[in-house]
Parts: sequence; C-alpha cells; structure tokens
Amino acid sequence: MFEKYFSKNAQQMQGSEIREFFKLTEKPEVISFAGGFPNKACLPTKEVEEISSRLLVEAEEGMLQYSPTEGQEMLRKYIVKFMAKKGIDIEVDNVLITSGSQQGLDLVSKIFVDPGDKILTEAPSYVGGLGAIRNYQGDIISIAVDDDGIKVDILEQKLKDLASKGKTPKFIYLIADFNNPTGLTISKKRRKRLVELAEKYGVLILEDDPYSKLRYNGIDEPAIKSFDKEGHVIYLGSFSKIFIPGVRIGWVVAHKEIIQKLILAKQSTDLCTNSFGQRLIATCGEEGIIDKQIEKLQEFYRKKRDKTLESLAKHFPIEASWTEPDGGFYTWVELPSNLNSKEILVKAIDNNVAFVTGSAFYVDDQGNNAFRLSFSQPDIDKIEEGIYRLSKTIKRELVKKNEIQKHIG
Amino acid sequence: MFEKYFSKNAQQMQGSEIREFFKLTEKPEVISFAGGFPNKACLPTKEVEEISSRLLVEAEEGMLQYSPTEGQEMLRKYIVKFMAKKGIDIEVDNVLITSGSQQGLDLVSKIFVDPGDKILTEAPSYVGGLGAIRNYQGDIISIAVDDDGIKVDILEQKLKDLASKGKTPKFIYLIADFNNPTGLTISKKRRKRLVELAEKYGVLILEDDPYSKLRYNGIDEPAIKSFDKEGHVIYLGSFSKIFIPGVRIGWVVAHKEIIQKLILAKQSTDLCTNSFGQRLIATCGEEGIIDKQIEKLQEFYRKKRDKTLESLAKHFPIEASWTEPDGGFYTWVELPSNLNSKEILVKAIDNNVAFVTGSAFYVDDQGNNAFRLSFSQPDIDKIEEGIYRLSKTIKRELVKKNEIQKHIG
Repeated sequence: MFEKYFSKNAQQMQGSEIREFFKLTEKPEVISFAGGFPNKACLPTKEVEEISSRLLVEAEEGMLQYSPTEGQEMLRKYIVKFMAKKGIDIEVDNVLITSGSQQGLDLVSKIFVDPGDKILTEAPSYVGGLGAIRNYQGDIISIAVDDDGIKVDILEQKLKDLASKGKTPKFIYLIADFNNPTGLTISKKRRKRLVELAEKYGVLILEDDPYSKLRYNGIDEPAIKSFDKEGHVIYLGSFSKIFIPGVRIGWVVAHKEIIQKLILAKQSTDLCTNSFGQRLIATCGEEGIIDKQIEKLQEFYRKKRDKTLESLAKHFPIEASWTEPDGGFYTWVELPSNLNSKEILVKAIDNNVAFVTGSAFYVDDQGNNAFRLSFSQPDIDKIEEGIYRLSKTIKRELVKKNEIQKHIG
Repeated sequence: MFEKYFSKNAQQMQGSEIREFFKLTEKPEVISFAGGFPNKACLPTKEVEEISSRLLVEAEEGMLQYSPTEGQEMLRKYIVKFMAKKGIDIEVDNVLITSGSQQGLDLVSKIFVDPGDKILTEAPSYVGGLGAIRNYQGDIISIAVDDDGIKVDILEQKLKDLASKGKTPKFIYLIADFNNPTGLTISKKRRKRLVELAEKYGVLILEDDPYSKLRYNGIDEPAIKSFDKEGHVIYLGSFSKIFIPGVRIGWVVAHKEIIQKLILAKQSTDLCTNSFGQRLIATCGEEGIIDKQIEKLQEFYRKKRDKTLESLAKHFPIEASWTEPDGGFYTWVELPSNLNSKEILVKAIDNNVAFVTGSAFYVDDQGNNAFRLSFSQPDIDKIEEGIYRLSKTIKRELVKKNEIQKHIG
C-alpha cells in the first residue's frame, strides 16, 4: 500500500538473512553457533551496577541530560588514551562518539556515498557494513581474501581498472582483525600496502574494529590506521564485544575535517548518543574495569575457540575446511561446492544445532557452500556436542550428494 | 581536503545556528532562555537509580545485551497502553522503538525522501526536523501558521498547485502541540481537516509529539493520529521531555507496512536502541513513575511559563508581540520588522541574557525579527530579571532604529 511513497534507498533495503533465522535458533534445545553477540555468562553486571549507582549521585546531569553531539569530553579523552595504546596518536577533535559502531558505518556511508558510488569490500564481509552502504545505494565491489586477508594484488588491479575508466571508489571497507565472518586477520605487510594504495589511488579506507582486543594467541597487529599519515583511514571502534553491547557506545577516529562533517550528520540523525552509557563507559574505562573485563573475556573465549577447533578436527569430514582464528568470535567453514549450506541449516535445526549461512555475507551469488560458526554463544560443555550434531548432518548430506553423483555417473 | 569525497547529502548539511550559540550561553552569569532541554532541577534521579540497580539484578541480559531492532517487547507493549490513553488504538506491530525521536525523524526521511522530493512543513518549524529532511535532500516548502496552528487553506492551495503539476509531496511535517519554536497548538478542527487533506491528496503526515503531555492549562487536543483511519499518519513520541533525555528513547507509531520498512532501515543505522534505557523506561512506565513525573513537571514548568508571560507583559515594549503557550517549553517573540534578532542576541549576551534567533527555524530568509524563548532552563527566580535585561536591550535597539529612521526621514 505504501510502496509508491518509499524512497529509492528504501526500495533496495534488504532484511538480514541472519536475523530471520535467529527466531528458529532460540529454542532452548538448539545449540546455537549463530549469534555473534557476547556471552551472557561473562557480562560485567556487578561492576555496571556499582558504577552507575555511584554516577547517578556524582554526575546526575552527565547521566540523564542530553550530551553534546560529538560525545562527552570525558569519554572522548578516554578514547584518545585507548587509541594511543594501539599506536594511534590522535586528539579529542579526531573522535566522534557513536551509538554503537553500526552508527559509525551509517554516518560514514551517509557523508560519502552517493547512489552508484563504488565501494570496495572484502568478500565475505560483515552484513551490517554491507547493509549500511546499500542503504545509500552504494555499488559494492567484492575483493577475494586468503589466509592473510584481502588480496591486495586483486584490489590494486581493480583500482587500476576503475582509474582507467576515470572512477575512484569512495572507500575500501575492511575488518582487519578476526573478520566477521571469516575470523581472518590481515597481515602487517598487507596493512601497510593498503595505506600505500589508498594514498596512491586517492581512496579512503574504513577500518572497522570491534574485535582486535579479543586476541587469544600471537601478538597484536598494528591497526591499519596506525600507518596512516595523510588522513586516508577512518577507524571505527566499539565497546559492544569487549565490554557490553546494551549501552550502544562506539566511536569514529578520523581526520578533523571528516569528524566535523560526521558531527553535522549525527546532529540530525539522533542528536547525541545516550549519556548514561557514555559516562558509564568513560568511568569504567578510566578506573581500569574495561581492561580487566578484556582480560577475563580473552580467557573465557580462548577456551571456547580451542574447544571449537578441537571438535571440528575431531568430528568434521575431510571434505570440509575451516579457518583457525587467533581471536574474535568466528570460524568460517567451507564445504564441497555441491553442498548448499541453506539446505544443511534446515536439517541442522531439526537436529538442534544452528549457524549462519555463508551467502548472507556476500552481495553476489557466492558462499552457498559455506557458513559461519560463532563460538561466543554456546556453553563450553555444549560445543563438542553441537559440532558433532552438525558433522552428522553434513556427513549425511555428503553421502546423499555422492549417491546422486554416482547415479548420474 | 576531503570535500571531493563528500556525498551530495553531506555537501548541503548545515550546522544548527542554535548549537553554535550554546557555547556563548554557558557562562554562569548568563540567564539563558536558549536551550530547549529539560531542567536539571526536576530530573527523576532517585527513581532511576533505584530501578536501574534492581533491574541489573532482575533483568541482566535485558539491560546489557543487544535488543531486537524493533525494540524490546516490554517497552513496545507499554507504548501501546500509553497511546491508548491518547485515544490511539494500535498493536505492538505498529510500534518501533527509536534512539530518541530525532532518530524517528531520520528514519522516516531515509525511507521516504528522494533528492528533490517535496516536504511540507510549518514555518517556523523544529530545526532537527528540517535538518533530517535536508540530510536526504528533501525540498522543504514552508506553510505559514496563525494562533490555531498551520493554515490549512494555504496548505490545501499548495497541495492543489503541486497536484496540477503532477507532484505529490511525500509528507507534511507537523508539531501539533506546543510547537517548537512557537509554542502554538493546532486546533481540533484543523487536525481533522489535515487528515482529510492527507487522504484526499494522497500525502502522509508526520506528527512529531515530544510535548503534548506537558500541558499547563486547558484540555488535551486529540492527536492528529487519532483521526487517521487509513494509515496516512506517522506519529513520533519521545521520553526526553517528559522523563529523561539521557537514555535516548523515542518511538514511532505507524501502519505495519511502514514499521517493517523502518525496522529494515534501522538495522543498518544503529542495529538497536540501547537496552539499558529501554528496560528502564518500560519499568518506570509500568510502575507509574513516568506518570508521576509528568504531574511533577506540569506543576514545575507551569510556574515558569506563568512567570515568563507575566514578565513579558510587565517589561517588554509595546512593539513586541509573543505567543501564550498552553504547554511545552517555548514562547515566540516578534519584533518590528526593522529589528534584527541576530544583532540583538550579540548585545543580549553582553547583557548576560540569551535566546535563539528566529531565522534558525526557517529554511528561507524569514524570522529575522523574531526569536524563541525557552522557559525550561532558567531558575524561576531568575526569569523576571532575564526578561527585564532582554527588554532593556530591545528598547535600546528600538530607540536606535527610530533615530536612524528620523535621521533618514
């Protein structure tokens, strides 16, 4: 009935396949590797309760009143220190506080993307990043990845091709650490190269970093932003995975000129991010509570990651391959190309185990034989059982497909 | 340096004049009638502290985890009851929870406004509403108002003119109760007529209602939405003025088909509104704390309103006129057309009193001789002194202009 009123932006908005399936995974008997959200067993509830009660007395207005659009000074200053520890040297004016890093994705798309603008992304890539770009009718060009992350040679070839047609993409969207959905990390060498390419071809980089603090082995890679001299890299941070998602606090780090434009965009988008969450996060940050929580989470999720990889090796068929992430929440499984992960998911749910199908993370017709496993949700003592159930479903499908093959042959 | 990267949306984003001036009004010696935010003396701090502490124990995940994009079920159900009391009969599926009603303005603009689309608004109108529409390059057409609100005859003439050119505006943006900036309320007769016009000309209405519960005399007018049979009216609500702004909780009520599209848009805009605030507001609502707070606020702001109008009558020159609002935060002052409120503001701030200039609320070159006074901010025992200071500044300007006039004459 209202179709004729909708904008062109609205007409091509798409529901997330992930969200549609979540309802099916909510039955208590399902062992779910679907949701990419923090585990409830490790929420810092007591700390939040203590600090917020105290702050409501100490900083009444800072909690309950409107905040400046750019964010509370105290939180912006904490972000400056937080970024310094990652080797990123900035000032308060380089920081915008956002309502979760999803709002960072939205605002960056809002101020840069005109309909038809080319945006380069890893393939597969984060659903919410792709969605934000598509909401402004950006034309997404997918670049393949390998174990060292985005293939920079293919990327450069694409940039050359576009340049030869007089086209410059607006930005390259990347999750450099423990990618969602692949779990992969871009190598240091490629990070440097990415900044060189950005400078050479006059394209921006949007580095989305919700996971880098959740590293379970190896040493931290420097952020892409840390190689940036000229302001080509926009960095998005978030407290959702490393502390709590429920207050929706993220941030953008960028050149001051870009931050100024983002502030203008945010003014008419939601006026300001919730004050309660800003003051809470800033205080928990300053008092070392966030750092302690990160250490706890590293311990907590490392065990789940280990159990998941161990169980995959033990139970999954030889035809399957998967990534071995050094951090984050995800491993990415690929099956023989004649298997379809959507068909498998239907049967898996009957078998009380769930995941997210691979095609959700592509803008074209790829990923049909792949899926994402998130090890953040299931209890540690359910992980092996979940992987075992899933392996049975997959093996049954393999047998079936092989019989059909034989029959045809 | 980044100008060439910015989208067309971004290129025409404008800073709010209001915000620019706020910094000047923050000196403690300034009596400020500028900010349209709730008074800190009346924040329900104790109640928020008690409820949030309790909820962190009772509903840990409901406070700290992600929420569904459409909003928490408990809060949506409370909104259904809240709207029923306003004579608006809806179901949970007609409700979307937003990050403040500013996000409602943004999302509605996002799903309806293509560049160049006509949007009709009252003139003057709310800065944040105009900004949201402009962020998507909507073409705003201003309709004049009188004491009964928007002039529906002029509006109909405009709709006819546009129809004769084959054009249908996407929507009419209205604040029906205690308008920001005028304080005016649209009469019941005109509200009905607005819905008739919407149906006749196939245009939507966006009814923005942050203030209607803050009525200080007279009886409530039915919401425009309460006359809507066919789904032409989209209603925006907010807890910022009637409870607290710091958790950024607002809502949209609309036809289910529109709500579905708004949910899609919100998914990629900020995933979900903060859970902490949603659960807090729903609980305070269900337990009658919000109703009690509204009663307190009515009493509190009524006195300020009365004192403001009394002081204006006592001190302002005969050449000035102003509105007499039945609720909300604002009165709108008009001066002789040869006076410029921007010039007066500069002198007023020297004289330690502040307001917002009228031109901020127009998209064209109107309102230069007008300004908005918000009585929500100044302490009640400072109001008369503030108005007195302002009257002196204005009288001095009047004398000066008259002398120039004489000199020229």
